[in-house]
Amino acid sequence: MMQRIRSKPERTVIGLMTGTSADGIDVALVRVADTGPSASLELVAFDTLRFSDTVRSRLLSAQGAGSCTARELVVLSSYLGELHAHAAAHICKKAGLALAAVDLIGCHGLTLYHQPSPEKLPGFSVNGTLQIGNAAILAERTGVTVVSDYRSRDMAAGGQGSPLMAYLDYILYNHRSRGRIALNIGGIASLTALEADAPFDEVQAFDTGPGNCLLDLAVRRFTGGKQTHDKDGLWARNGKVNQALVRKLMEHPYLKRPPPKSADREMFGPAMLDRVLKEGEGMAPADVIATLTEFTIQTIFTSVMEFLLQKSRYEEVIVGGGGARNPVIMEGLRRVFPKIHIALADDYRIPAMAKDAVLMAFLASETLMGTPGSCPSATGSRRPVVLGSITPGVDFFASEGAAES
Amino acid sequence: MMQRIRSKPERTVIGLMTGTSADGIDVALVRVADTGPSASLELVAFDTLRFSDTVRSRLLSAQGAGSCTARELVVLSSYLGELHAHAAAHICKKAGLALAAVDLIGCHGLTLYHQPSPEKLPGFSVNGTLQIGNAAILAERTGVTVVSDYRSRDMAAGGQGSPLMAYLDYILYNHRSRGRIALNIGGIASLTALEADAPFDEVQAFDTGPGNCLLDLAVRRFTGGKQTHDKDGLWARNGKVNQALVRKLMEHPYLKRPPPKSADREMFGPAMLDRVLKEGEGMAPADVIATLTEFTIQTIFTSVMEFLLQKSRYEEVIVGGGGARNPVIMEGLRRVFPKIHIALADDYRIPAMAKDAVLMAFLASETLMGTPGSCPSATGSRRPVVLGSITPGVDFFASEGAAES
Repeated sequence: MMQRIRSKPERTVIGLMTGTSADGIDVALVRVADTGPSASLELVAFDTLRFSDTVRSRLLSAQGAGSCTARELVVLSSYLGELHAHAAAHICKKAGLALAAVDLIGCHGLTLYHQPSPEKLPGFSVNGTLQIGNAAILAERTGVTVVSDYRSRDMAAGGQGSPLMAYLDYILYNHRSRGRIALNIGGIASLTALEADAPFDEVQAFDTGPGNCLLDLAVRRFTGGKQTHDKDGLWARNGKVNQALVRKLMEHPYLKRPPPKSADREMFGPAMLDRVLKEGEGMAPADVIATLTEFTIQTIFTSVMEFLLQKSRYEEVIVGGGGARNPVIMEGLRRVFPKIHIALADDYRIPAMAKDAVLMAFLASETLMGTPGSCPSATGSRRPVVLGSITPGVDFFASEGAAES
Repeated sequence: MMQRIRSKPERTVIGLMTGTSADGIDVALVRVADTGPSASLELVAFDTLRFSDTVRSRLLSAQGAGSCTARELVVLSSYLGELHAHAAAHICKKAGLALAAVDLIGCHGLTLYHQPSPEKLPGFSVNGTLQIGNAAILAERTGVTVVSDYRSRDMAAGGQGSPLMAYLDYILYNHRSRGRIALNIGGIASLTALEADAPFDEVQAFDTGPGNCLLDLAVRRFTGGKQTHDKDGLWARNGKVNQALVRKLMEHPYLKRPPPKSADREMFGPAMLDRVLKEGEGMAPADVIATLTEFTIQTIFTSVMEFLLQKSRYEEVIVGGGGARNPVIMEGLRRVFPKIHIALADDYRIPAMAKDAVLMAFLASETLMGTPGSCPSATGSRRPVVLGSITPGVDFFASEGAAES
């Protein structure tokens, strides 16, 4: 069976992703042909299954360095295993395909903790990452072989375990004659820099800094939670940027650090918003939002100028994530990069919102093919590694056994 | 590479086990020939690497339902990953073998939580188990393919995830004409019942109840921690059994439940000792120990009488675990089973103390061979399942890739 999957010209793979905001499970059904830089992907179906408020708040409270128990973690991981299996069945139904026709499932799970900086214990310094979503339950319910726990192996090889998106960006956007930057403006903004006709092992990728996280937090705070984000950039549009404050914010040490680097959620979290509101005491809410929006634009601008344009030419920035739907951010990018074409990721083959789940499917296929899924120039690992652990489906060994006898 | 491992007449496998008492890492180097009921095992080397007191107490405090954090869990899991890799290198050195000559590593890890009874959440009832010991780190440091997380898949298939020892007991002790009971007296006492010439899928296995756990707790309490167990049964030998109290203890509901069943550590933990000491107020410490020793003997006797001897003949009980080194327990077993030969596991091919680690090596080999490692008649699962997740070693896919091109 494993050999059968490997020898197919095209594999049918389900990808499952739950972002750290624990909104729900993204599930993609993908056809993957070939492996390595010449791989190609076709998205067959995509959906998001939202968590109930009860489930979401229980998941959120287990995250981070706060108090949890081994028991709660086990219960939530098994529960997510069941929900993942449900999502896999759901996407097959939507695509009119039997689960038995699926070759593989790639499952990221929900990150409860991610800490690339090591802690010193007797004899060893250790770091680590934890994604929950019981792979045994997922494999047992679906019968399909599961690949999971992608980030641990990259970290075991000295990497930051992130970003993994560099590989998919390479597959989707790498261009023979155009230098491209794939920019994802989620809570944190991250980019993948693809020089024209770049070899895969020179791809750079890193977090530029805050994406929408500070903006979202500010809008929530100003509206008492009634609004969750600056829809269509209306707040920012009606506010005035406090340039002095932007300059001050730009002194954040993370922004000066050269890549590879990845940003903590907490780095640009509630504590930073508190400082911003204190610095800008007396500012109108719209002015604060306008200022934070400009901060996001400037962090992206500086990162691109300092770490990318110094060395190479880039003709295009392809923008995805929630920030791509904020016209003030998009106009800001066109203003700061007048000579670069600012495009929308949604205009490419894979819609931006599906990219995480598609990546998880692609990486599962790469693991089964024995192809490294990490990019050392992006994660900082010592070597490219085959990612994840393989939990066998019901007939993972079946035909090989038959071939032996 | 995977195919290469599968086609070898004999696999060289390292097994790693850390018991719930978190004393240290048991590591065994094993040669496994064949697969399934006709498999055979040869123990090449065995050792135990003890944890320092600091590490042990940190591991113990992360166990159970008590407070922990996702962070602490990640740090400890990664740290155990490093220590496991160190143990693997150590046993190779001891055996004069290069790590590169090892085909597989089977890693149990340390159980932080194990709960077979389900909890109801919206839509699904879930249970689960958690063993820590980062498999990615172990695979990356050693370069060897790792099989880990054995218990989850059995539980996903409706089993209790325990006992897994039934399979190894079958391989080691199954006899054409003699009915045998393999009895392990650890903290909890467990047995595997092997009728003469029994087919593997009818093997029964379950926890009989307390082994040494209550005894150890009592000795620790009476000596303020200076003694950790009733060495050579001297306390029990000098005490007098309170038969009325033993009869009362025998009313514990767990003892009446028919198998398959597995006992919680907490069931026979500090809270139970408190009750015993209250019931037996005024008893001399030695009398308490003698009474608890007799309780252990009686729970084993009743389990064997009620659940095994009613249905089948058994000629032999093969005793392993710490309890086998307590002469009062051994004499007690000879007294209650006058017609059954009471033998020592150490007199068989695999010394009792090495069995856990040997089992982990054997199960890794079975998983790679695609052979189920669980026994539904022992764990209560709906079907026999191939256990664990496979984390590829550096050349897991190597020769298969070569064969393809």
